Amino acid sequence: MRVRMRAAGVCNTDLELIRGYMGFSGVLGHEFVGTALDGRFAGRRVVGGINFGCGRCRRCDDGLSRHCEHRTVLGIQGTDGVFAEEFLIPDENLIPVPDAVDDRSATFAEPVAAAHEIVDQLGAEAPREDAVVLGDGKLGPLIAQVLAADGFDVTLVGHHLDSLGWLSDRGVRLSDRAPEQASCGLVVEATGSAHGLRDAIAATRPRGTLVLKTTVADAHEIDLSPIVIHEIQVLGSRCGRMAPALELLADGSVTVEPLISAVYSLDEVETAFEHATRRGTRKILVENS
Amino acid sequence: MRVRMRAAGVCNTDLELIRGYMGFSGVLGHEFVGTALDGRFAGRRVVGGINFGCGRCRRCDDGLSRHCEHRTVLGIQGTDGVFAEEFLIPDENLIPVPDAVDDRSATFAEPVAAAHEIVDQLGAEAPREDAVVLGDGKLGPLIAQVLAADGFDVTLVGHHLDSLGWLSDRGVRLSDRAPEQASCGLVVEATGSAHGLRDAIAATRPRGTLVLKTTVADAHEIDLSPIVIHEIQVLGSRCGRMAPALELLADGSVTVEPLISAVYSLDEVETAFEHATRRGTRKILVENS
Repeated sequence: MRVRMRAAGVCNTDLELIRGYMGFSGVLGHEFVGTALDGRFAGRRVVGGINFGCGRCRRCDDGLSRHCEHRTVLGIQGTDGVFAEEFLIPDENLIPVPDAVDDRSATFAEPVAAAHEIVDQLGAEAPREDAVVLGDGKLGPLIAQVLAADGFDVTLVGHHLDSLGWLSDRGVRLSDRAPEQASCGLVVEATGSAHGLRDAIAATRPRGTLVLKTTVADAHEIDLSPIVIHEIQVLGSRCGRMAPALELLADGSVTVEPLISAVYSLDEVETAFEHATRRGTRKILVENS
Repeated sequence: MRVRMRAAGVCNTDLELIRGYMGFSGVLGHEFVGTALDGRFAGRRVVGGINFGCGRCRRCDDGLSRHCEHRTVLGIQGTDGVFAEEFLIPDENLIPVPDAVDDRSATFAEPVAAAHEIVDQLGAEAPREDAVVLGDGKLGPLIAQVLAADGFDVTLVGHHLDSLGWLSDRGVRLSDRAPEQASCGLVVEATGSAHGLRDAIAATRPRGTLVLKTTVADAHEIDLSPIVIHEIQVLGSRCGRMAPALELLADGSVTVEPLISAVYSLDEVETAFEHATRRGTRKILVENS
């Protein structure tokens, strides 16, 4: 289906793709809100799941098209992305956006879904205790809010906390110090750095859970033995479902406006990307006005 | 309580401790069967859990004395081990050995318990599908048998399979080739090598489980990103419960005799350790006759 781009966010994955990750060459962009030009939702505002399964394999049959080995991924793998006037996406991937969610907030549906994936993976039975999120960049503050909304007692750890004071209204504590060794039942690694991964492993208590939310390119010299000795459960976590993400944005459980560092127009997309690479930048949006 | 050593096994951990792992200096040995000289089981053959919790912390209260941060560990950390005429162990750690389990088999109770820990961690609900165990050294053949007895369809992968043909009677397939990429629902890493860990990550299918059973000292240049992309669950796994291990040995589900490479007497313990370090050696036992 054809979708007219309304607004889109720059993700760290986009920045890695520019540096050659996955060998992608094509139009970037996978965090979007647009107007469906045809299909079920023609004329309506939509967001969408970014993995396009083949629809014919066992994983697709099992509802795991996000893990289909023949999949393409919007703006990441084999399919042009959304930093364009229009783009193509399968109808079944689209989901309409509630009126309560404005365009800028709706561009966060994809990363909020990725944050909510943690809750889905933990399952309803997992105790809602203390949780530590390492990384106060683009994804960490979203994960912290999603976990807090789900009943966890959340601390966000980072070094650029000045502009995140409002997270306390969401029940999220802020800390600029690595958590104590073996102190946390749930630790989420969202720094994407070897240093963060090391802190995350150290912070997870015996029989606790460590969620890897970002790929760490340079994981050299990471000592994995505490994972064995402390019988830690490590969960790799990637994309999530759009529907709960839109609910969290619609009911105000997740606030995103303060995370927007700047907004550019579509003809300024190169400047937008340059800005996104600057240290301390959170979300850069591109609007098609 | 005092226990007279009857027989004991040399474990890879012992060999690592000799090389300086954990800074332990003292009597080695934690895989044993002995005769209790006092306490509840005086006069009877016993094996025992090797972690001695403080008994006063939250983890001990929760039944996780194996993860007590004040614990000592028999022959590994803060407590002399079993390669001696007699040794000391808390009464509550001891469990009597059924008559059906002879001394040599009983020395395997500790590693069989460690193998069975995987089943405990997976829980009763996990589907019993295909499983691959990487590593045909001391621990891998035990893990393969325990998983097969638990209903998994098990393949053991290694390079010293000549003497393991008997495992087919236990329903275990043997293979000298790394499994196909992303093909296995349950993968157990029991090689202790960076190469094995890399194969294990690659072999685990999306949303599958990878059990780390051995600490990998040299994990440099391991790419962890497939864990995130494929949303793999990684479970660190260490010591287990003795009771189910003794049951598996008593009912014949786990055979250990063919895994014994040699048996030495207690006054030959140095020779026994030297033998244990030779390539291709499986279990070396020491008997106190």
